[in-house]
Parts: sequence; C-alpha cells; structure tokens
Amino acid sequence: MISASTAHIHVDEGGAPERIGGFKLLTVPTDDGKLTPELVDREAWGWGDEHRAQPLVVSITQSTELGTLYTAEEITALADHAHERGMKLHVDGARISNAAAALDLPLRAFTRDAGVDVLSFGGTKNGAMLGEAVVVLNPEASDGLIYSRKYNMQLSSKMRFVSAQLIALLEGDLWLRNARHSNAMAQRLRNAVEAGLADGSIRGVGFTQPTQANGVFATLPDGIADRLRESFRFYDWDASRNEVRWMCSFDTQESDVDAFVAELARLTTT
Amino acid sequence: MISASTAHIHVDEGGAPERIGGFKLLTVPTDDGKLTPELVDREAWGWGDEHRAQPLVVSITQSTELGTLYTAEEITALADHAHERGMKLHVDGARISNAAAALDLPLRAFTRDAGVDVLSFGGTKNGAMLGEAVVVLNPEASDGLIYSRKYNMQLSSKMRFVSAQLIALLEGDLWLRNARHSNAMAQRLRNAVEAGLADGSIRGVGFTQPTQANGVFATLPDGIADRLRESFRFYDWDASRNEVRWMCSFDTQESDVDAFVAELARLTTT
Amino acid sequence: MISASTAHIHVDEGGAPERIGGFKLLTVPTDDGKLTPELVDREAWGWGDEHRAQPLVVSITQSTELGTLYTAEEITALADHAHERGMKLHVDGARISNAAAALDLPLRAFTRDAGVDVLSFGGTKNGAMLGEAVVVLNPEASDGLIYSRKYNMQLSSKMRFVSAQLIALLEGDLWLRNARHSNAMAQRLRNAVEAGLADGSIRGVGFTQPTQANGVFATLPDGIADRLRESFRFYDWDASRNEVRWMCSFDTQESDVDAFVAELARLTTT
Amino acid sequence: MISASTAHIHVDEGGAPERIGGFKLLTVPTDDGKLTPELVDREAWGWGDEHRAQPLVVSITQSTELGTLYTAEEITALADHAHERGMKLHVDGARISNAAAALDLPLRAFTRDAGVDVLSFGGTKNGAMLGEAVVVLNPEASDGLIYSRKYNMQLSSKMRFVSAQLIALLEGDLWLRNARHSNAMAQRLRNAVEAGLADGSIRGVGFTQPTQANGVFATLPDGIADRLRESFRFYDWDASRNEVRWMCSFDTQESDVDAFVAELARLTTT
Repeated sequence: MISASTAHIHVDEGGAPERIGGFKLLTVPTDDGKLTPELVDREAWGWGDEHRAQPLVVSITQSTELGTLYTAEEITALADHAHERGMKLHVDGARISNAAAALDLPLRAFTRDAGVDVLSFGGTKNGAMLGEAVVVLNPEASDGLIYSRKYNMQLSSKMRFVSAQLIALLEGDLWLRNARHSNAMAQRLRNAVEAGLADGSIRGVGFTQPTQANGVFATLPDGIADRLRESFRFYDWDASRNEVRWMCSFDTQESDVDAFVAELARLTTT
Repeated sequence: MISASTAHIHVDEGGAPERIGGFKLLTVPTDDGKLTPELVDREAWGWGDEHRAQPLVVSITQSTELGTLYTAEEITALADHAHERGMKLHVDGARISNAAAALDLPLRAFTRDAGVDVLSFGGTKNGAMLGEAVVVLNPEASDGLIYSRKYNMQLSSKMRFVSAQLIALLEGDLWLRNARHSNAMAQRLRNAVEAGLADGSIRGVGFTQPTQANGVFATLPDGIADRLRESFRFYDWDASRNEVRWMCSFDTQESDVDAFVAELARLTTT
Repeated sequence: MISASTAHIHVDEGGAPERIGGFKLLTVPTDDGKLTPELVDREAWGWGDEHRAQPLVVSITQSTELGTLYTAEEITALADHAHERGMKLHVDGARISNAAAALDLPLRAFTRDAGVDVLSFGGTKNGAMLGEAVVVLNPEASDGLIYSRKYNMQLSSKMRFVSAQLIALLEGDLWLRNARHSNAMAQRLRNAVEAGLADGSIRGVGFTQPTQANGVFATLPDGIADRLRESFRFYDWDASRNEVRWMCSFDTQESDVDAFVAELARLTTT
Repeated sequence: MISASTAHIHVDEGGAPERIGGFKLLTVPTDDGKLTPELVDREAWGWGDEHRAQPLVVSITQSTELGTLYTAEEITALADHAHERGMKLHVDGARISNAAAALDLPLRAFTRDAGVDVLSFGGTKNGAMLGEAVVVLNPEASDGLIYSRKYNMQLSSKMRFVSAQLIALLEGDLWLRNARHSNAMAQRLRNAVEAGLADGSIRGVGFTQPTQANGVFATLPDGIADRLRESFRFYDWDASRNEVRWMCSFDTQESDVDAFVAELARLTTT
C-alpha cells in the first residue's frame, strides 16, 4: 500500500495496518502531504517480483494531514494512474467534509466521479460522538467486507447508534455546515495571525502550509508553544523546528479563535 | 486459549481471535456452557512441547452463553487451577452484571477476589449504546495493553463518550437495577411457560438449561419457532433439535413477556 | 477450514495455521482420522453469517495421522461435497506415497482425478532430507501463491537443492519403492505381533486401527511402552489408555522389525 | 523495528516482517547501508505514545546490502545506543562470515562482545545448501523462541541435515576460508576494473561503494549491463542510474573474474 509518509495510517495507528492488516506501507515523502502520480511511481514497481511486497493500493487523505486539499482533477489523475497499474485508490476521508466545503463541490465529484474505489467517510471529526463509514464505490474492491468488518472488530452490536449519527449528519446539510464552520474558523485564525504579523502585534510566527481546510500549521518562536498550551490544547507537528498544528472544529467558537490570537500576541511580544 | 466450545469467542466472533489475535482456541464441549478444572485439563497439557500451541489462558463466560452461572467458588477453583499451571483466567463478562444480580454478590466477590486476571465488563448488553471495559485485575497480565488497544482498533478518538456511559451505569446502581430487571423478566417468562405447561395452556415446550440469569433455553414443537418469530425476535440455538434462545433485556417489559407467553400458548394449542 | 480433530495441522503445528495463516480450524472428532461428507457437515454451515468464520476449505490427510487410508471414491465424494458448497479440498500428503503404494493406484487417481484442489506432496517422510511440494491441481485455488510462498518464508534461496531431491524421488520409482518398503515393514510388524498374540509369545497387546499404510497403532500393558523405548524410539498416541504409534520408514530394516517384536515378546511375557 | 531503508528485511522479504511478524519497519535512508546512532534517532522516538508503533529493535546487516562493513566499534556504539533506549540490537548476518574475514576479527569481537542481542548467522551465502542459525546472545531477547520457530514454520523435521552443514562450516575454518575467498575474488574484480580504467582498457565504469566484503557496486555506461548479462548473471541495484551489484561467492574462480573483466573491457571499448 502506497501512501504519503505523513499519512495517518503510517504515523498514528500504532502499527495496526501492518500488525492487523498484514500490509506493508510503502511511503513517500511529500512537501504538502499530497501524493502525485510521479510520487506514487517511486514505490509503484515490482509487480510479479516475488521478493517484493506487491503494491496493490494507493491511499491518500482528503483533506490531508497537513491541512491541504486535492482538487477533483488531482484525485482523478491518481485514480487513473493507480488503475492503469492494477492498483486501487483508497481515500482516508476523516476530514472529507472539510474538503467538500473548501472545494465547494458535492462529495461525489471528487470521490465516485473521480474514480475512488473505497472511501472512509469521517463522522467523528465533524461532530459525531464516533462513527466512520467505509463507503465502497467500486464493488469489486469490497470482497468479503462484511466478514473483515467483523473479524477486524468493527461491527458494533448496536450499530444503529452509529448509523443514527451519520443519518443526522447526512440527511440534511449538517455535515456541510459543520465543515464550513470549522474551515471558516481556521481561516479566521490564519487571517488574524497574518494581520497581527503585519501590524506587529504578533511576532516571529511563520506558516508552513497553506490553510485550505480546518488546520493551520505554524512555526513559533522558542518556548511559545508550551506557554500557549497552558491555556489552549494543540499538538506539536515537528518539535525539532517548533512547528505546531492548530485544528479548528465544528464546535470552535469565534471567541475561542479571538482569545487564542490575543494570547499568541501577548506571548510573542512580551 | 482454553474455552468451552459454546464460548462466544469461539462461535460468534468471525474468527477474530485466530485471525487478529493469532490465538489457537482449544475448546471443550460442556453440558451447560461451564468449564471445570477437569474439563480444562482435557486441553491443558503440552507445555514445553514446541509442536503444540501453548495453553496460556483459560477463558470463561459469566453468565454463560447458555444462561447459566458460575458460583464464586467455581471461579476460584478455576483460577487456582489455571494459576497452578501457569495460565491466566479471563472472564468474558458481557453479561456479568446479570451474574452479580443473580448471585446477589458484589462484582469483586467473583472476579478480583476469586483470582480472575482480566475481565471484560459488558455495558452494551446492560443498557449502554456501546461500550465494554477491559478490566485488568492482575497488572502482570496487562503487558502492552495500551498499545494492543490501539493496534487492535479499540481506541475511540472520543473515548469520553464510552466512559460517560460506563460512569452512568456504575456510579449508582443502574448497572444492577438493569441486570436485576432483565433477570426478573427471564424468570417471569420461565415461570409463565412452566405454569402454562402445568395447566395445559401451553403444550410441547421443554427446557434445556436452568434459567439462572436473563436467558431461557427451550425446545419447541416443529414449526412453532418460525411462527412465533412473526411477532417476536429471537434466535435459534440448535435448530436441529428445535432449541431456541429467549433473552430478556434491560428494556423488556412485563407486558412484552406476557404477550409472548400468550402467543406461545395460542400457537402450541391450536 | 474443516479438518479431523486429529489432523496434524490442528495438533502438531504449534498454532501456525491460526497465527500465521489467520485460519480458524473447525475440527470434527473421528474414529479413524477420516472425514466423511456427513462429518464435514457438522461444521460446514453458516456461509453468509458475518458472525461465523466462513468454511472455505476441507483439509484431509492421506494416509491419515492414524495410519488409515481414504479410497479414491471417498476422496471424490469429499471433493464433490466440498465443491457443491463452494469449498476447496486440500490434501495433506505428507505420507501420500504410502497411500499410493497401499492403494496400488497412480497418484493422480486419488488426487487430480478425484477433484483435489491443492495437495502437499511429502518428500521428507519418504526419504528426502527435507522438501514438500505444494501441488496446485486447481489453478483457481492458487491465487497469489508465489507471494504467499515468500512471505510465509517457504522460499529457499537455493531451492534447487530441494528440487533435486524431489526429482530423485519422482523421475523413477524411488518414491514408490520407498513407500512400498515402509508399508511392508509396518505389515510385517503387525503380522508378527498378531502371530505372537495367537501363539502366546506376546501378551496383552491390542490394536486400535487397521494397518493400511506405514503405521501400527497399538495398546500395551501398563509400563511396557517406557521399557520398550529403552531400546526403540516411538511416540505415545494416547497415553491415557497406553496407546502407542509405531511408524515404519523407508530405512526400517526387516531385522529392526524382528528385533522390536522379540523385545516386545520378552517384555510382555516376563 | 528500525533499519536502513536498504535492509533486506525491508526490500526483499515480500512483506514477511509486516505480514507474519506484525512488525512495523521504521526505515532510514543511508548513503552506504549503515545505520549510526544519529540515523537511528530519526525513528527512535515515541515510546509511551500509544498512537505510535513502539521502536523495540534496531536491525543492522553485517556486511551490509551495499557491501560495506561496520567496525566492531560502530556496532558497540549502536548496541549501547539501542540499549540505553530500551531497544535490542539484531544483526542480519547473512554475510557475517565475510565481515569476519574482512575485519580479521573473531566473530564474537563484533557480535557478543559488542552487545548484539540476536544474530542470524548465515550459512547459505557461504557454501551451505541452506541453513541459517538464529544465535541468541542475550537470553532475555529470546522469550518463546522455540515456539516462534515452530509457528513461523522454520523447524525442519530433520533439522540434523541443517545442523550438519553448520557443523561442517564451523568446526574447522571452512566458514572463514570460504568467506576470505569470496572477499578476495571481489577485491580481485575491483582491482582489475580499476586497473582497466587506469590503463584505458575499460571505459565509463564508476564505483558507488567501497569494496569491503564480497560485493562490488558499479555504474555502467548505457546498455552495457544487459550485454554483460548475456554471459554473466548479476542484478541491477538501481536501474535508474545504471547501478549494478556484482557479488562474489565461495565458488567464484579467479578465471571467472578474469573472464568477466575481459568481457567488460570488450563491451566498454568497442
């Protein structure tokens, strides 16, 4: 399975894909968390060589772990590329609603219509208590799925309580409103910090990625991250260069963003 | 891992223990779903023989898949027996609250105090939307548990919603009231059918297990099970001998039981 | 995977089928180590039930772990039965040369022509240093085999040394001569013990299985097995009833058998 | 498990470590196939973080897949570094005899005495038909090894034929003579090509690694590799830059090397 080296399945699943799935992840470094056909080809080789784990799936994340977006055209190109080589395209859609909101496209425009074979549709990061749906867009890619759901211990005995949440999100536009809101909060944060840098009220902050969905990736002056965390929760992304990851959510309030920016200003100027 | 041949982990997990855990289940037939030290010894041998999967854990279910109960003394004997042979004792407690209610004992009397090493405490069958807790009573039996929870895909990202349900069950006596209620409904069902058999209003029904918790196991005349299922949901247990399994739950009403018995009477006498 | 409860894959592989293959073995007790369609049906059910490990393969051993034989007709019946239910038939042929010798049939008469899908052809027990061949008779049952051979660590880097042994066995009739010899030695042993029992020179020995290939299964008076093992190597089969397993090999000599019988006579009559 | 990205376990085992072992390989690019404590630290982090596969083992190859050598001091430094962080050090010693010959050191000087926990000692690449020995130098690192040998299908039923080969190699100095010979042949090859480049009889060949054991890594002019392979067998290493890998063996003759060099000269100058 080929993925970006920043993919959640590679860095944040405790080795489950290897240990439970038996997969070998073939990972490729990227600048922005996005694979391209050229990057895929760094690992997409060796079919028929019995000594090499066979590349059978390309897995991408939309929006990515770095807060960036694939366009519908980019996903189509990846799907075509994968299919030409006998591989399937999987999309980790933990934040796919954010992508739909940001791209201003219906979900199918950059999933089914783009050639995606299997999608994991995320509910948890968009307002649900818990619940993700594995959406099989290409039935040929779903052999034995009801059995693997069970033996992989993902079949709840009262699945209706998961379904109810997905219905609540999807029967109207709650999924989209939640996603638009979290994207807007990230944009508000980005804009406010940029404005602060411009007028000098904030100092020493840089950005490492564009803000295309609900995340802002920034570098901070030494020591600021920990002091900021005394009041707000967020993770380091790359501690070696003081890079942090600020994610906005369906329940982030404008006042939360404003308070955060104010504290950042205070800490970087005093 | 040694279990009864009726154990849920053997018959109803889609092969997950073998496929995901890598365990070999060494199963023993029983009359009533209960292991004894003697039954354990049928498979508890071969330590040090490199050709044999090593028996390291005895797993029992309380209350059992057949609606029967282990006494605290029986569990203690099994724990002692397992420990003497270098094995651990695991309790599948999907219905352990029913056992506590039926035994009229505190949970610890037949778990920690009896020598149980690891218990799975069931919330789902006792009123929760979903949620089971792996309770490590012997810390030496929990090596690497936070990692195996993750790579076995049992770590919810918003675990607080599972915890909240367990807190609701356990901070007062809701867990016990729910369990007592479902046990009482099973007893009401058993009593009513027995009374019907005695007075002739029900015919041809037999019982295959004592009703010690929230389940009634019965045999029915040919064809009755399917007709009864037109109005009520229940599973066959052993279709080859018309054996069915009637489970009562925290939300079973007295009126449900009474309607069920009335329909059973109607079907078996007309 | 359905097998007899005495199958080597169940009792003597250290749990490899479960741990490495991820298989759940569904085992059936037998009198003589042989499955029948009726015995298969005890576990061949539940297709489509997501809670049950799906039965996909029937595995038999020819000759069996109890020294008994399937006829070509019996294997055909099992293959037809398996195929009707969407299952494949695997034959563990660790001793298949002994079966061919005993049945006096070409190998294909009771493998390919009988409908066997995959056969493991044993070299090790028939004179090779090491070497078994997985023989795919039904190409549809071999999906991905060159890859699974590698990741299951069965691809030797100098496979030619394994092949050379199989060629030596199979290009002439060495495989058959070796097998006939070991079968004849087992028959000599059986005959000699029966004669000894008849004339009183041997006492208290019983037989638990017919001797159809290269093994003799016998019960001995208390204490005899261990005393006999002071001079000869053999295994207990069921120590609880003094049952032992005497296997003859390509390099067993007539004088070995005669000395063994003489010692057995001495031990059981003094 | 941390290894160089060129490690055989990463690139040439068909995904067995992941699929069968359940390991996640954390790989680090290197120039010469050798890890250093600094390179290890790129992946040696995250202990206690339940979301990250825990780094528990550092695996190095001696001599490396690039024909280079670790000194005893370098291995000691890696072992100390691993142990300080609670990790074990594994050495893939498929060509460890070549290393001993090249370093002119007893095996223990750069294994046991250097702090290696587990070593795989290679016989196959040094003259055996087949046979590698897992040598446990730190008994605490071998928990359950006799069982894992079996369920990982590495226990031959006639292991004596493997042992006999290792005894033949190790009871005298055959292991060392074989290794010295193959190293000498590689050096002869390297020297001859360098001489040819110097005197103009060979053109356009470069070297990408030092020749420290039995391998020569070279770059060739376009098209030469395939023409050379019409007469001699060798693998591409990195086809994208015409890099090839020439390995010498216990049975490589001086005349083989000389003929190879002559053909290389002919092909690169005509």
